[in-house]
Amino acid sequence: MITTKGYAASSATSGLAPWEFERREVGAKDVLIKILYSGICHSDIHQVKSEWAPAFYPIVPGHEIIGKIEKVGSEVTKFKVGDLAGIGCMVRSCGECENCKSGQEQFCLKGKTVWTYNSKDADGTVTYGGYSNQIVADESFVLHISDKLDISKAAPLLCAGVTTYSPLSRWKVGKGHKLGVLGLGGLGHMAVKFGVAFGAEVTMISHSPSKEQDAKKLGAHKFCNTNDPEQLKALDGYFDFIIDTVSAPHDYNMYLKMLKVNGVHICVGIPPVPMEIMGRSLMGGNRVLTASSIGGIPETQEMLDFCAENQIHPEVEIVPIDYVNKAYDRVLASDIKYRFVIDMSTLN
Amino acid sequence: MITTKGYAASSATSGLAPWEFERREVGAKDVLIKILYSGICHSDIHQVKSEWAPAFYPIVPGHEIIGKIEKVGSEVTKFKVGDLAGIGCMVRSCGECENCKSGQEQFCLKGKTVWTYNSKDADGTVTYGGYSNQIVADESFVLHISDKLDISKAAPLLCAGVTTYSPLSRWKVGKGHKLGVLGLGGLGHMAVKFGVAFGAEVTMISHSPSKEQDAKKLGAHKFCNTNDPEQLKALDGYFDFIIDTVSAPHDYNMYLKMLKVNGVHICVGIPPVPMEIMGRSLMGGNRVLTASSIGGIPETQEMLDFCAENQIHPEVEIVPIDYVNKAYDRVLASDIKYRFVIDMSTLN
Repeated sequence: MITTKGYAASSATSGLAPWEFERREVGAKDVLIKILYSGICHSDIHQVKSEWAPAFYPIVPGHEIIGKIEKVGSEVTKFKVGDLAGIGCMVRSCGECENCKSGQEQFCLKGKTVWTYNSKDADGTVTYGGYSNQIVADESFVLHISDKLDISKAAPLLCAGVTTYSPLSRWKVGKGHKLGVLGLGGLGHMAVKFGVAFGAEVTMISHSPSKEQDAKKLGAHKFCNTNDPEQLKALDGYFDFIIDTVSAPHDYNMYLKMLKVNGVHICVGIPPVPMEIMGRSLMGGNRVLTASSIGGIPETQEMLDFCAENQIHPEVEIVPIDYVNKAYDRVLASDIKYRFVIDMSTLN
Repeated sequence: MITTKGYAASSATSGLAPWEFERREVGAKDVLIKILYSGICHSDIHQVKSEWAPAFYPIVPGHEIIGKIEKVGSEVTKFKVGDLAGIGCMVRSCGECENCKSGQEQFCLKGKTVWTYNSKDADGTVTYGGYSNQIVADESFVLHISDKLDISKAAPLLCAGVTTYSPLSRWKVGKGHKLGVLGLGGLGHMAVKFGVAFGAEVTMISHSPSKEQDAKKLGAHKFCNTNDPEQLKALDGYFDFIIDTVSAPHDYNMYLKMLKVNGVHICVGIPPVPMEIMGRSLMGGNRVLTASSIGGIPETQEMLDFCAENQIHPEVEIVPIDYVNKAYDRVLASDIKYRFVIDMSTLN
């Protein structure tokens, strides 16, 4: 076993504190990664607090991991010691079903997707995430990180990045398209960057006029203040696509009206209550409502390579590990532009 | 003016009775069609009873019209006297906006779509539909009817046909796809026929085991009785597409679960109340919910030609015009397999 240092929560209310635990030895197909940077995702907070389901405590969060290969198993072919590497939301799946074979391991038909933390691995042990100094994982779920990327900023690509890249890429958003972005947070700011990189005209749609400057700094071409009836009316039937990063309940019908014929509303955040959709909001233009969840491994690699090639990086604030509880408070207060990354060298 | 005989309702409760009215003279771009057959659509009943909005009384319903060209205007190029011709749900639109130009006249951006009946035409007069002996219309909204079609059965193609053909064609449903059909009525039975013709594996999904035989007679390959938990479970993640013809409120989440990753649920019937969609029903497989409304003129022509080529006809019961009130009662009681067509030669 490999003794590992990390930060864990021991209960839903404890907050995170230093914790030492064991990781498995490096198997034939495993790599050992020394973790350099670990992103903080809002879903870490939900899981630490058992807000989605009772967590396995102690819980070590973190599914936006950037590091360096320190050891490789005897059958490893993708990596060598010294390579930069990343891990996102998943570390295993059945590998045999239709979805796994087509690179959509997040939808493993056998329900054998193992999440990077707070999940039961194939051997029954609980997985521990990236708020730690090292991790052992099957190479199939480890991503190559180009040295063209600024690794101090790249971690959030592994979740926020692929979550927004995946649907924009799948729906072929690009030149000639008008893309609306709802919500300017960890996901929204990446949606703006990808939309712009793909060649679309990008409009930030928000009820806070204060967001205009920030959105334009990120590359957004236009801004709509939804509190202004004139601006709102001008968007009737305007967009080819809307990417909706808001997970609080909101009025979908208002946004569906902004879509052209055959327009697509893509939710990457979903509310905990049913979405109330008026049939005519869809039928009045053959419109489409969909949602999208992270992305598979091949797609994540594609996204990372695209970001390296096009110098796309999340906007981050780098913090030491002992800042994590404070960082959580600030995420909950939406007081971060736009993602925290923990510098794991601060974990002693 | 052209004196015309028809059947009209004089109020929401009057039922239909013979009525004589005037149609405009044949303009330069108009054709005069002698109506041979007129389909009865459920939406005729909604409109006659002012269930959607107050109707313009007297109302002459009918937007599934098959007939023969009797006269052409001086600038008509598409038709000559004696040609078979059809009219569907629309008779005019602005012709200039992006949607009209791309053959999606049902979504005219200027709101100038004129419906075949119970609608205000460009000159301010009310339109009267197909339950009449003749109709005058701009040739742009008149369809060619191949003599390969059995014209006594073809009328419902103009609404029920294109409403199901359009989304199945737009989403490229075909070989290798598994298509579920919800609801076996006027729309559902056409969805089965088109699904089969396009090469998909077609499953009728119903809570009435009695529908199995009927569905298979229409060409459906499989049947699922949703009251049987075993059969229901077997459909988890099974379909590429579901076409949903049910306009009564129902549980969309149950059907979304039946879709594969990236699967598409297409509503051609919509309920009058909001659809309650759980975000995870969509996100748990990047699934898509959409709705679709009739089809544009070029697409309607394409559908008619496809039906002629592939000998696809609605299943109809042909009735005389004086049966129309009784036919309405039977439509409301779902006592028709699957569409009534009025033989307009019975109108004296």
